[in-house]
Amino acid sequence: MIIVLKPKHTPKELTALLKEIKRLGYKPHVMRGVARTVIGAIGDERSHQSLDVLRAWSQVESVTPIQKRHKLVSREAHPQNSTINVRNVVIGGPELVVMAGPCSVESEKQIIETAHGVKSAGAKILRGGAFKPRTSPYEFQGLGEKGLKLLAKARKETGLPVITELLSEDHAELVAEYADILQIGARNAQNFQLLIAAAKTGRPVLLKRGLSMRIDEWLSAGEYVLSNDNAGLMFCERGIRTFETYTRNTLDLSAVPILKNETHCPVVIDPSQGTGRADLVVAMCKGAVAMGADALLVEVHPDPKTAKSDSAQQLSLGAFGQLMKELQPFAQAAGRL
Amino acid sequence: MIIVLKPKHTPKELTALLKEIKRLGYKPHVMRGVARTVIGAIGDERSHQSLDVLRAWSQVESVTPIQKRHKLVSREAHPQNSTINVRNVVIGGPELVVMAGPCSVESEKQIIETAHGVKSAGAKILRGGAFKPRTSPYEFQGLGEKGLKLLAKARKETGLPVITELLSEDHAELVAEYADILQIGARNAQNFQLLIAAAKTGRPVLLKRGLSMRIDEWLSAGEYVLSNDNAGLMFCERGIRTFETYTRNTLDLSAVPILKNETHCPVVIDPSQGTGRADLVVAMCKGAVAMGADALLVEVHPDPKTAKSDSAQQLSLGAFGQLMKELQPFAQAAGRL
Amino acid sequence: MIIVLKPKHTPKELTALLKEIKRLGYKPHVMRGVARTVIGAIGDERSHQSLDVLRAWSQVESVTPIQKRHKLVSREAHPQNSTINVRNVVIGGPELVVMAGPCSVESEKQIIETAHGVKSAGAKILRGGAFKPRTSPYEFQGLGEKGLKLLAKARKETGLPVITELLSEDHAELVAEYADILQIGARNAQNFQLLIAAAKTGRPVLLKRGLSMRIDEWLSAGEYVLSNDNAGLMFCERGIRTFETYTRNTLDLSAVPILKNETHCPVVIDPSQGTGRADLVVAMCKGAVAMGADALLVEVHPDPKTAKSDSAQQLSLGAFGQLMKELQPFAQAAGRL
Amino acid sequence: MIIVLKPKHTPKELTALLKEIKRLGYKPHVMRGVARTVIGAIGDERSHQSLDVLRAWSQVESVTPIQKRHKLVSREAHPQNSTINVRNVVIGGPELVVMAGPCSVESEKQIIETAHGVKSAGAKILRGGAFKPRTSPYEFQGLGEKGLKLLAKARKETGLPVITELLSEDHAELVAEYADILQIGARNAQNFQLLIAAAKTGRPVLLKRGLSMRIDEWLSAGEYVLSNDNAGLMFCERGIRTFETYTRNTLDLSAVPILKNETHCPVVIDPSQGTGRADLVVAMCKGAVAMGADALLVEVHPDPKTAKSDSAQQLSLGAFGQLMKELQPFAQAAGRL
Repeated sequence: MIIVLKPKHTPKELTALLKEIKRLGYKPHVMRGVARTVIGAIGDERSHQSLDVLRAWSQVESVTPIQKRHKLVSREAHPQNSTINVRNVVIGGPELVVMAGPCSVESEKQIIETAHGVKSAGAKILRGGAFKPRTSPYEFQGLGEKGLKLLAKARKETGLPVITELLSEDHAELVAEYADILQIGARNAQNFQLLIAAAKTGRPVLLKRGLSMRIDEWLSAGEYVLSNDNAGLMFCERGIRTFETYTRNTLDLSAVPILKNETHCPVVIDPSQGTGRADLVVAMCKGAVAMGADALLVEVHPDPKTAKSDSAQQLSLGAFGQLMKELQPFAQAAGRL
Repeated sequence: MIIVLKPKHTPKELTALLKEIKRLGYKPHVMRGVARTVIGAIGDERSHQSLDVLRAWSQVESVTPIQKRHKLVSREAHPQNSTINVRNVVIGGPELVVMAGPCSVESEKQIIETAHGVKSAGAKILRGGAFKPRTSPYEFQGLGEKGLKLLAKARKETGLPVITELLSEDHAELVAEYADILQIGARNAQNFQLLIAAAKTGRPVLLKRGLSMRIDEWLSAGEYVLSNDNAGLMFCERGIRTFETYTRNTLDLSAVPILKNETHCPVVIDPSQGTGRADLVVAMCKGAVAMGADALLVEVHPDPKTAKSDSAQQLSLGAFGQLMKELQPFAQAAGRL
Repeated sequence: MIIVLKPKHTPKELTALLKEIKRLGYKPHVMRGVARTVIGAIGDERSHQSLDVLRAWSQVESVTPIQKRHKLVSREAHPQNSTINVRNVVIGGPELVVMAGPCSVESEKQIIETAHGVKSAGAKILRGGAFKPRTSPYEFQGLGEKGLKLLAKARKETGLPVITELLSEDHAELVAEYADILQIGARNAQNFQLLIAAAKTGRPVLLKRGLSMRIDEWLSAGEYVLSNDNAGLMFCERGIRTFETYTRNTLDLSAVPILKNETHCPVVIDPSQGTGRADLVVAMCKGAVAMGADALLVEVHPDPKTAKSDSAQQLSLGAFGQLMKELQPFAQAAGRL
Repeated sequence: MIIVLKPKHTPKELTALLKEIKRLGYKPHVMRGVARTVIGAIGDERSHQSLDVLRAWSQVESVTPIQKRHKLVSREAHPQNSTINVRNVVIGGPELVVMAGPCSVESEKQIIETAHGVKSAGAKILRGGAFKPRTSPYEFQGLGEKGLKLLAKARKETGLPVITELLSEDHAELVAEYADILQIGARNAQNFQLLIAAAKTGRPVLLKRGLSMRIDEWLSAGEYVLSNDNAGLMFCERGIRTFETYTRNTLDLSAVPILKNETHCPVVIDPSQGTGRADLVVAMCKGAVAMGADALLVEVHPDPKTAKSDSAQQLSLGAFGQLMKELQPFAQAAGRL
């Protein structure tokens, strides 16, 4: 940690501060500069208490950490890429994995038709919401357990593993019973109790980025999964909130190379939530694949015009087939199988 | 709803759209403009399905709602100010209510000393975190139930009602047993399952604004409380996330008059989280009071220099006493008792 | 400056780095920590080149400055408050100064009527736009020099000094001929050539905050004025751009105490641009005054319903009179005359 | 325009409003809904005054435009892609164009070496800053006219056309004398006087996106160029300002497909400014090319470790050569020559 002192501090104040730094387990190192005195506090910042508390001392101007607090999630600790195997689909390996399906499971006919459709176009995993987090209590909240059962039925018919959102600790076991991957949505990205509950089911966890989550905070949230004995963590960028109103969110594709730098966990891109507009999905997918994303999460509906949620961002089956074709040369250029 | 069509649409496409609008329960009204055709769809937007689904129709350029979807929370529905009575402290009435206490409950000595201190300076409610949501799993997570018991003890000694954060559905009953007001933190502001669980305890709920929550979304989240038969809702602005790095968050004081326009529920300001800096708390409180806030939520610690969390934003007891004195003339100017 | 090295660097790389740090005029100080080696580089960061260049060295992980780069603008360099005297109106002194007038000067009748009206309500300075920066080239661009002449006429009739926006280097002399204070708008807040041109006229400069300008960058922009031999600098917060869409901008009132900490220059608040809504202006003004603003900049129009620009944010003369009355007790509570 | 009235308005207020709407040149169309009365005002919104003024009427709740105000810039008006020919390099055509060179021109040796280097790696245009907009007046401000002369020399030696930033109206003629393309920087993106001055030189203009500029505002700013008789406009995304601090800016690659939807002008991506980190440039370029960018603007320096500005984001010549090789398959996949 680097502690910068205010210009006018007494020798006594400095001494007290040095004593406290030692008490907290660090070795202080004083540097007297022209305009400021600076203390370098040497010690493992991950195993000792943060010196952030020193910001409350009146003679202190600022406290800056040197080390990041991530352990298990960081590439420094685990240089090799992690892979996640879900019923023999490998995420994070050489193959680009496309997860596709409707925003919400609406009926048996809808989910079965979608599952067959996306499978034949090349998707490897089926997505579909059973429990839906909706901005207003008066909007469609999903089919709940009935939706989970329909997803399981679609898996049985097509062999596609299933990913669905978990939005309540109380549902963790229930959802884990039916789903192959648990999705934590953007609104719950720092709902740490839910992250722990998800981790404890043992199912792989896809952690979406919160609407205004810094990469650093996202990695820390992921640490809640890995430190609860679940190695199956993947990160999913789904758009951040900015001042721009043309799109629903601003899909931050720079998250791909940044996460590849910082973590060994697979990186997924969700262009549907990320833009809120079906007409932008194809271009965003091309970019994501070119930049090294391991997987895509794409919303597909057999008839978007009648969808019960987020109709404007869902692709028809025809459009999805076209997308998969257009992605081919980019996946190849990116060295993907 | 207002539906704008793309420049080149066929009469047949228009007809199909009008049919669908009627099917969804609205009466369409076609206006042919110079460059665009516009359909006004008349009907109660709160009781019918949203026409947002029409955005998926290829001939549609945009869909704009006219009515807000809030019902119970809106001032239009409930013109009088609501008040919340907590052990005879009334929030939302003529008196300015100050809630004060430490970020985290750390020990019996700490919380009892703080409770006495803030009470004698004029605080009416004691705050203190027992379950703490922390960015990293390696940080102090609060004393849990032990913390709740200490809060109850402090209440017994001082008579101050207690507010504390609820961060897990599974703790709802436990926390409600000890606390007089349940706080929903910024990270859980759209954790709707938690909002429902909090509402169902019957305790008043203080709903903090999410880090990047629009006012409109915040009101919708509040709707989850009111529509679950709990009238004791108050909104607490605690800083939004912006590009500014000088402060931890940007405390959006314009939320005070906006909420006063839009809702009947009491408005609370948290300048401690809102800035992350003790040296800004006094000025922010003065502004909040002048602008009409009903209550303040201020972090106070007997010794901020040793606090286990958020030390830099907690006031000492002395500083808090000074704050209460300095607020007097502004509360008076604002017509507060 | 603090330079953090990457975990795996060779002794040779460290030596090269130390040599470069010395060459750039700093004295390096090596601290070997558990996980990282850190170099403290001692020297006056304002007179030497920034060590930011070291971020391009492959063995360097991060470079953090210790000192801020502001000189003339900082309170550290100039502890006393600065005041600006404009035709005997003193900004930054004990008196709260209100500047009021229309968004745009539209006609002689309009500006003269407004000038008389705001003066009798207590305004001390007349504002009015002659050259208007408009998002689209097809919107009203202001009356130009004719508008300046009308402002001068209004000053002659009422004695009120005049503030107006400068938006082109080429107009600097012209505008300075008529105006008592030059306003630099948000869109030009980092148009450094314009800042220099404004400074060189010798007129006081009101520098609005850019839409997404950090306080630190704002202070640096102010440095362009002070370092060009113009001591008459004031800062004006006018709303920043955030994700919120309820208001046109998010008026950041925390800028008041922050600027008071960091600089000696007077602080002005513009609630009209800051919210874009006349119905929020009164509350924002109360907050600003309570928090210590030195002056307010308020848009007033004799008939907002026919204004040529920004009608929704302008107060009528009646509403302005009411505002001035309501501000009284808050100004008094804040110790203003 | 769509005007929504407040719930309680009198027939007289409605009549007055309808009269005003007609006076402003629109034909009103009243729709009485369940909770609100809505007026559709039919008329060409680009040739008539905006009805935004109606927001100042007390009986009006909101005013929403239907038409965008862009004329010349929009793809609706000009369905074909525009191309810009600069000394036989065509931007916006089938070939991907890479513009490369140092952040600042520092010396003859530096710029000549870079020009030869980037040319041999495949760049088609040389970039280099002569006038530099710097956050602080104490930073290196560029070589000015001397820099322009060195750029011209580099062009003479290599045949590469030259792009450089214009940051003062007063320099427009001077810079246009030496440069083939004028760059308008992010800080001046709404400096409309500068845009007009640049347009009037007749040189093609590369307009960078402002730090917090909505796409819609960016297109409007472009309108200032096209409406001043200069058809040579291209848009350059260079990162927007968000809450994220890992990168200097958040490069918004969704701008590529959005601009391709909305405008016929060529789209350029600047990954160097867009991220501020050389280690992210390669991935961002791949994404940009895959998504359909017409050109890239990349900072290259023969020795980034000694660069006078923005060292951390400049590629070495070796790294640039590598980038050009790695881009090949993606350019091909995107159908570029």
